[in-house]
Amino acid sequence: MAKVKKQPRPKAITPKGFRDYFGAEVTQRSEMLQAIAGVYHRYGFDALESSAVETVEALGKFLPDVDRPNEGVFAWQEADEDGKGDWMALRYDLTAPLARVYAQHRNDLPTPYRRYAMGPVWRNEKPGPGRYRQFYQCDADTVGTSSMAADAEICAMLADTLETVGIPRGDYLVRVNNRKVLNGVLEAMGLEEGAASRDDVLRTIDKFDKVGEEGVRQLLTKGRLDASGAYIDGVGLSDEQAAPVLAFLTSKAADTAGTLDNLRAAVGDSKIGAEGIAELEQIGALLAAGGYGSDRIEIDPSVVRGLGYYTGPVFEAELTFEILDEKGRKRQFGSVAGGGRYDGLVKRFTGQEVPAVGVSIGVDRLLAALREKGRLATQPKGPVVVTVMDRDRMADYQAMVTELRAAGIRAEVYLGNPKNFGNQLKYADKRHSPVAVIEGGDEKERGVVQIKDLILGAKIAESATLEEWKERPSQFEVPREGLVAKVRDILDSQD
Amino acid sequence: MAKVKKQPRPKAITPKGFRDYFGAEVTQRSEMLQAIAGVYHRYGFDALESSAVETVEALGKFLPDVDRPNEGVFAWQEADEDGKGDWMALRYDLTAPLARVYAQHRNDLPTPYRRYAMGPVWRNEKPGPGRYRQFYQCDADTVGTSSMAADAEICAMLADTLETVGIPRGDYLVRVNNRKVLNGVLEAMGLEEGAASRDDVLRTIDKFDKVGEEGVRQLLTKGRLDASGAYIDGVGLSDEQAAPVLAFLTSKAADTAGTLDNLRAAVGDSKIGAEGIAELEQIGALLAAGGYGSDRIEIDPSVVRGLGYYTGPVFEAELTFEILDEKGRKRQFGSVAGGGRYDGLVKRFTGQEVPAVGVSIGVDRLLAALREKGRLATQPKGPVVVTVMDRDRMADYQAMVTELRAAGIRAEVYLGNPKNFGNQLKYADKRHSPVAVIEGGDEKERGVVQIKDLILGAKIAESATLEEWKERPSQFEVPREGLVAKVRDILDSQD
Repeated sequence: MAKVKKQPRPKAITPKGFRDYFGAEVTQRSEMLQAIAGVYHRYGFDALESSAVETVEALGKFLPDVDRPNEGVFAWQEADEDGKGDWMALRYDLTAPLARVYAQHRNDLPTPYRRYAMGPVWRNEKPGPGRYRQFYQCDADTVGTSSMAADAEICAMLADTLETVGIPRGDYLVRVNNRKVLNGVLEAMGLEEGAASRDDVLRTIDKFDKVGEEGVRQLLTKGRLDASGAYIDGVGLSDEQAAPVLAFLTSKAADTAGTLDNLRAAVGDSKIGAEGIAELEQIGALLAAGGYGSDRIEIDPSVVRGLGYYTGPVFEAELTFEILDEKGRKRQFGSVAGGGRYDGLVKRFTGQEVPAVGVSIGVDRLLAALREKGRLATQPKGPVVVTVMDRDRMADYQAMVTELRAAGIRAEVYLGNPKNFGNQLKYADKRHSPVAVIEGGDEKERGVVQIKDLILGAKIAESATLEEWKERPSQFEVPREGLVAKVRDILDSQD
Repeated sequence: MAKVKKQPRPKAITPKGFRDYFGAEVTQRSEMLQAIAGVYHRYGFDALESSAVETVEALGKFLPDVDRPNEGVFAWQEADEDGKGDWMALRYDLTAPLARVYAQHRNDLPTPYRRYAMGPVWRNEKPGPGRYRQFYQCDADTVGTSSMAADAEICAMLADTLETVGIPRGDYLVRVNNRKVLNGVLEAMGLEEGAASRDDVLRTIDKFDKVGEEGVRQLLTKGRLDASGAYIDGVGLSDEQAAPVLAFLTSKAADTAGTLDNLRAAVGDSKIGAEGIAELEQIGALLAAGGYGSDRIEIDPSVVRGLGYYTGPVFEAELTFEILDEKGRKRQFGSVAGGGRYDGLVKRFTGQEVPAVGVSIGVDRLLAALREKGRLATQPKGPVVVTVMDRDRMADYQAMVTELRAAGIRAEVYLGNPKNFGNQLKYADKRHSPVAVIEGGDEKERGVVQIKDLILGAKIAESATLEEWKERPSQFEVPREGLVAKVRDILDSQD
């Protein structure tokens, strides 16, 4: 072992792309996760918590470049004597671990297996503003059934979840599409699986959100001058060849029946297309029977996100209200959850195809949306602070906080150096304390305490005239035994 | 890039030393963490969630062997062009990240800073039975005050927490010791800091839990024949030299005053010893004033765990009830939480000494204790299962679960292949469903549903005579509109 040099002082910083969460950021997320778990549980989903670490082999996706297995994930090799330890990695999502868990425990799990999972995932990507390398996911999946009732159920559950966490009906929309219908359209165009331009068409469709109908038309045919002035080559289809794709993307009609009719026209006599339309029809019927109208969930073939990944129905939840972006322009808040049906995930392990459908909710985006709408307190109340006027009577002050806590009131005694009373009030301010309690020697003798309403005090200090100040005192003297009742009164008056 | 060979099928296994948690294991832990967070919050502690990943530099402890920074932690080097990326690692506890966070954000945080944190930590250690490389910690710490009121508060909070999660008074005891008193004893023995045998004595004291008073006496002096027949060398003190250590370890008297008197005798005129005793006295007085008697928290110098790590008061919570170990022998359940006062943690970063005191609760051990005492359901109820008798009427069945869920009842429709009805009941069994709902074509026609009490059914099947069977039917026919009410009746009767 090399002789250890004296280390310089370590830097107190998070690694690049990681951050700390404080106070309400933690508790609000935790409350949201609990609320979501409550809905998932009521729908019959069981909790699953797999470990943060998986073998690189089980995670799979990132293996192709075998010399460098940590592309996209955080990976390391287990230390062993001969340097041949297993490669391990932090999970990059909750779906890959689900596939591993299902393959490993399938004989003990019910079929179908409904499970939910929530927790952090890690991405070894270049961090950017607001883009972190650790973030939360919150998933629900049904593994082992191809019944469209599973897909419909997940759409309904998604709608219920959004309403439960505080997004009212009308402020969100779950939109449903189907990859099979798109496959039908491609088939109708003569682009069978494996056709060279098929991938180009898929990639182009992915831009529909950004460039719209006319943009996609140009990109599918001759090409397009983009906003920056650059010319983007087209796929080279003729206008007629491009027509079915555009018909598909714009097939949404006033009602589901109309949309399905449009889709039928777009897929022609493609068998896979007809299958996809039948699936959408089933989902629509089941949701209608459950009372989920098009104000909550609708069939909308313009949903393109995930069409490349999923193999059947695809869904996305969007918040429909407008917010102001960083430049002050109005825009829709956008997507907060997405999911769909996928095959082959478990097959990697077992060789057997296991159908599965799932949804993933972007918890941090949902929290941002609720803050945007003013539905989450940005600065929740701190604890009641019992100040220390006489260092030798700490036991008296502790007794006060014990009483307050026993009454369910968040409270603490000031534990810093009590010498400077101003520092104690500054501390209360920093903690966003609603109330301070003061008991000096004089008060002790007279059997009373002073109770300061810090929120009212701040308001008065800001805006009141001298008269109001006198009329609305923010400090009250009460008998010591009236402490808890008076603090509660003030807290109630502040709500 | 090397040409990629076709990979063999990946193994569906967790990495060595990691495991999955299912259903109630997840939700019961989550509920316990919420309950603990509730107490911590009421005491004025703020939540903090730092990321799982820290720089190896910030974690510190594991740096000495610079060639192999992942000793004890899971570490990896950030990939960059010239192979000089930072080393990052998974946190091994919640205290090292707290020190980093406090040093990084100290200008924005209140002083003192009370924070709690809960989450997984990772240890790169050889796994063993029941010993995992990822496990939960649940900590509360007060940083920036040397007031003993902070230590007393944490002891009181620990007692409150244990009662809140379901350990009644009398089944636990928080025991308090002080490293300074031990230092005083060592000083009185002439073993100043740096003395060669001082570490030997500390190591020996650590075995007090296991070998008891006589064992420690032997180990401090001539040595000892252990249970396996091996001879353990002694430290080589004389009986007189060893006496103060033994006096310290056995100084617990009938009451706090008696214990403190014994300690005074053990430390002689050591200044640091007297300081430690004064600290214990203060803690005792504050706790007494708060109504925390010796049935909950007591000064007990036989608590040796952590004495090597902490610099002042040390505390440990033990569960005092007996359980049967794997060999059927009675033993006390033992420690579920510990903590104490420590210095120097923040100093690594800033050069300034910042006093801190904290506690860490072993959530998984607490859960095990509650299960042991039968206070946690080992098999919680599954969802009500609505069976599928007629595949074409899926919408009818979905409508039933929608009604049940809207009434707050956990329910689901069977989503597997409905052909074999036996499989549906087997599924309900595997889910531990309390109730199954059946509506065949005949029932549909007559406007009724069959509701099966699966728990009563199982009981009757196990033990009932034919007469009882007839008298206590476990299947009920009710009008379709009475579905929710009847299901609720049955669920209530099962509690």
